[in-house]
Amino acid sequence: MRATVMYGAGDVRVEDVPDPRVQEPTDAVVRVLRAGICGSDLWPYQSMPASEQGRRMGHEFLGVVEDLGAEVSGLNRGDLVVTPFVWADNTCDFCAEGLQTSCRHGGRYGFDDVDGGQGEAVRVPQAKGTLVRLPVGEDSALLASLLTLSDVFCTGHHCAVTAGVSPRTSVTVIGDGAVGLSAVLAAKRLGAEQILLMGRHTQRTDLGRRFGATDVIAERGEEGVQRVRALTGGDGTHRVLECVGTKQALQTAFGVARDGGVVSRVGVPQYDEGPIGFDMVMRNPTLTGGAAPARAYIEELLPDVLDGTIEPGRVFDRAVNLAGVPDGYRAMTDREALKVLIRA
Amino acid sequence: MRATVMYGAGDVRVEDVPDPRVQEPTDAVVRVLRAGICGSDLWPYQSMPASEQGRRMGHEFLGVVEDLGAEVSGLNRGDLVVTPFVWADNTCDFCAEGLQTSCRHGGRYGFDDVDGGQGEAVRVPQAKGTLVRLPVGEDSALLASLLTLSDVFCTGHHCAVTAGVSPRTSVTVIGDGAVGLSAVLAAKRLGAEQILLMGRHTQRTDLGRRFGATDVIAERGEEGVQRVRALTGGDGTHRVLECVGTKQALQTAFGVARDGGVVSRVGVPQYDEGPIGFDMVMRNPTLTGGAAPARAYIEELLPDVLDGTIEPGRVFDRAVNLAGVPDGYRAMTDREALKVLIRA
Repeated sequence: MRATVMYGAGDVRVEDVPDPRVQEPTDAVVRVLRAGICGSDLWPYQSMPASEQGRRMGHEFLGVVEDLGAEVSGLNRGDLVVTPFVWADNTCDFCAEGLQTSCRHGGRYGFDDVDGGQGEAVRVPQAKGTLVRLPVGEDSALLASLLTLSDVFCTGHHCAVTAGVSPRTSVTVIGDGAVGLSAVLAAKRLGAEQILLMGRHTQRTDLGRRFGATDVIAERGEEGVQRVRALTGGDGTHRVLECVGTKQALQTAFGVARDGGVVSRVGVPQYDEGPIGFDMVMRNPTLTGGAAPARAYIEELLPDVLDGTIEPGRVFDRAVNLAGVPDGYRAMTDREALKVLIRA
Repeated sequence: MRATVMYGAGDVRVEDVPDPRVQEPTDAVVRVLRAGICGSDLWPYQSMPASEQGRRMGHEFLGVVEDLGAEVSGLNRGDLVVTPFVWADNTCDFCAEGLQTSCRHGGRYGFDDVDGGQGEAVRVPQAKGTLVRLPVGEDSALLASLLTLSDVFCTGHHCAVTAGVSPRTSVTVIGDGAVGLSAVLAAKRLGAEQILLMGRHTQRTDLGRRFGATDVIAERGEEGVQRVRALTGGDGTHRVLECVGTKQALQTAFGVARDGGVVSRVGVPQYDEGPIGFDMVMRNPTLTGGAAPARAYIEELLPDVLDGTIEPGRVFDRAVNLAGVPDGYRAMTDREALKVLIRA
């Protein structure tokens, strides 16, 4: 089959790889219908050292079950399914707590002989625990929004949930990328009435307003902090959703957090150490967030997608076929595209 | 009156200062009966640049109301009272949320023409909101334990509360200083059944065991992390109470935290940046804590002290009079004394 392999920074190729097949009785093989390029895919695209072996890419996808191991109950060939971006047994103690990202028998796509999602098909380990059936057909207009349950919308939701967003909290969202916009939508869905979006790309912040942002702050750094404070009586917001991943963004996050507030971060940190020293202690902020256990959220969010209450798939503003994936990486890196949908 | 003034690292003097008097109608003057030397007093003792003016010291004290401003209701001359280590109006929105450390009209002892607690008397601003009456006499045997409500036990309690310690959580406490031991006692009081205390001073960890520690880990750094993991089936504990304040202690805290767990820190951070980068993201830890709003906890904890259920005053293992305060600083710095009680 054809699949996406990254050989180093800027070097993404679509090439022939072995067809996936059931190897363990807990596996399924899924033919990919839709996949996404994730903001986190861009970090290796910008920095990965050259590699002869390459690295299989993609962890956001939905598709059709083609084959099943003997121990996979609850699924049938032909089912349309979405995967969370990490696979998990969904039965261990961590999974039971809703932390499937720490599953004792889980793992990541594209590693350890497991396919990536940016290809024609994927062997999915722990298929019973991992895959969630979608009650739609292959031609559904909802596929783009359903695909966001694989990662980006669940990541925004995780950010809002771990931050404790509620109707009683004001919220700042830092970042107008697909995750930041998803966080806006999630905060709105959880009832937040004041949602300040920090971002400077008008097309993106316009979508942010459609998703529920009440104010847009284009200023960055200390200027941005002062702007948020001006909009919140000097105090900052109760909750801050940090969806960028740079140290500057985290610094801004603490700067706009109300005393006793919560900063949740879901961007992949591009730093080893962060600004959490003495200055923060009197103000009692909490820092939380991390990789989203998407599997914990899919069933809860699915009805709102199916009935059109939310349209998280609007973050996709470009679609490519498999051959177009390398150009999709380029377009997202150049900020030509917000997020790229792959029609496999 | 006599009071403690620090003129630089290692230079603590007890000398004559102006007698406090009511300046604002919201003030009270409190004659100090008992005061404490705090671990946080030792940081300037080790690093304060020489100063001609000096700095008034002390923020943990209890005593007797000597005088009251016209607007202070609910208190009478002769009342025995304890103060939280920051004063607060206890009516603003932050106070109403239990975050008196961020009070809109609050402040710190020893700054802005407010006395420190390590002296004969203190002008207490916002006395009505700040001071809590204690139903005991000046000769009560409970004074040492009641004094811990001013800071150290409330700080340990804040650490445990913000971490979310409960009967269902395992706990690691990092640090066998007075705050760490208080955190052990607080965790035990909140129902934790497994409490691992990381510390290497046997006298102190023995008190930790009396306070409720189930295991003591003397190893530090990576070795200490491995030891905690060995005691917890490889997983680490749900809650980690970081009561030291160094970067190494914070690193250890993240190392011993179970995935999805909470690290709360109440030691004064001796670092500007901390290890919160990529490695942590897949594990979803939360970092919380900060300066304890002791005022929010005093009424809740007071009954357990009064009826002897808990004896947090056991952290005081040396008593001095005012003249002995400089030697008290030295003794704590040299780790001769765990915590010094001042009989003013």
